[in-house]
Amino acid sequence: MTEVKRTTIILFSGDYDKAMAAYIIANGAAAYDHEVTIFHTFWGLNALRKDEPLALKKGFLEKMFGKMMPRGADKMGLSNMNFAGIGPKMIKHVMKKHNVMTLPSLIEMAQEQDVKLIACTMTMDLLGLQEQELLDDIEYAGVAAYLADAEDGNVNLFI
Amino acid sequence: MTEVKRTTIILFSGDYDKAMAAYIIANGAAAYDHEVTIFHTFWGLNALRKDEPLALKKGFLEKMFGKMMPRGADKMGLSNMNFAGIGPKMIKHVMKKHNVMTLPSLIEMAQEQDVKLIACTMTMDLLGLQEQELLDDIEYAGVAAYLADAEDGNVNLFI
Amino acid sequence: MTEVKRTTIILFSGDYDKAMAAYIIANGAAAYDHEVTIFHTFWGLNALRKDEPLALKKGFLEKMFGKMMPRGADKMGLSNMNFAGIGPKMIKHVMKKHNVMTLPSLIEMAQEQDVKLIACTMTMDLLGLQEQELLDDIEYAGVAAYLADAEDGNVNLFI
Repeated sequence: MTEVKRTTIILFSGDYDKAMAAYIIANGAAAYDHEVTIFHTFWGLNALRKDEPLALKKGFLEKMFGKMMPRGADKMGLSNMNFAGIGPKMIKHVMKKHNVMTLPSLIEMAQEQDVKLIACTMTMDLLGLQEQELLDDIEYAGVAAYLADAEDGNVNLFI
Repeated sequence: MTEVKRTTIILFSGDYDKAMAAYIIANGAAAYDHEVTIFHTFWGLNALRKDEPLALKKGFLEKMFGKMMPRGADKMGLSNMNFAGIGPKMIKHVMKKHNVMTLPSLIEMAQEQDVKLIACTMTMDLLGLQEQELLDDIEYAGVAAYLADAEDGNVNLFI
Repeated sequence: MTEVKRTTIILFSGDYDKAMAAYIIANGAAAYDHEVTIFHTFWGLNALRKDEPLALKKGFLEKMFGKMMPRGADKMGLSNMNFAGIGPKMIKHVMKKHNVMTLPSLIEMAQEQDVKLIACTMTMDLLGLQEQELLDDIEYAGVAAYLADAEDGNVNLFI
């Protein structure tokens, strides 16, 4: 009987490059038969947003946050050399040239590989994000669910 | 005999939101009977500063660092959408609305739950921070103390 | 027979202070007989760049990235209070005063202690970095090599 290996990632960052790193590690670990969890909290929730705007009832600040934060993985900026949005275009150009998967494709692949994608309900409340705005087939939970997976984890990262 | 679970967090960041994430995880883990260590280094030391200024003997650069860095958890900025201090006000407003604990309360709770709070002595020297400026009842140590806790850790994070 | 302890660090950040933290932990762990791996990806690759410019054949964007990114550990900025390059000078000044090792010395020490330094080949491609531009005696590999080390790791960090 072989022991199940487990990888957990807290994706806190809303940067394209950091989210790419998270999803590349997650997909790699899944390919090596790890059970993988990505717990999206704070700005990392933006990676799970659908790209179309929805008409939802929200308070003023929640509406503001919703407008100011990137709507989905493809709209996220870089942690470094962002240059008002030129950096992401440059990176995506070289990614295409080198056949590197885009972040939306990496997320799709993770879902196909049964990586467990969790949205942190506490920070959804804070940022005013509602379930309809996020990708389908994800889970909703809090820090206790993360800890339950992480305490059996071989690789636990905060990104 | 059940094995003790252990969580360690290196808090390197001086951002309010990242420190919140660190302390939420720490308090969660402590509630699940983990032994928890938060090792504060570099800008993460600011979370441990008392908010009143003290008249201390310091070199010029150390005085400068002391003035420029946030004096305590409540003064820290956001890693994202800080907007010259408006972001933290917005976040604190929605936190209050959703009954989410503030960072100073989370730190207090961690101390009540016996989370071990360590200040990294090497970076205290670099940034010119002295023991009198930091919260009471914390420990002072270096990277060796961190490693001793982390190598038995189930969940080890760098934030 | 004692079990080998293992520490792995993904160095994603291109900031001087974060790279310092990574290398201080790595050197500490190596001193305590851990097998240590630092996997340099994205901006973390800059810590491995040689400081002299080389005349290499590159595409336009790759040339741009090469020019805009810091050429080696000594040229990297701070994650916080960088102030257009004044921050790193201040920090290096207090480091000297307190006999704290510089980042280039920490990297040298890591190599002497047989810390395994890996450059991520996928992100080298993206950023147009070639082997001749990076330090000697490092390894070149992808995420699979990282995971193989990390899944046996006691301490696995993402910095």
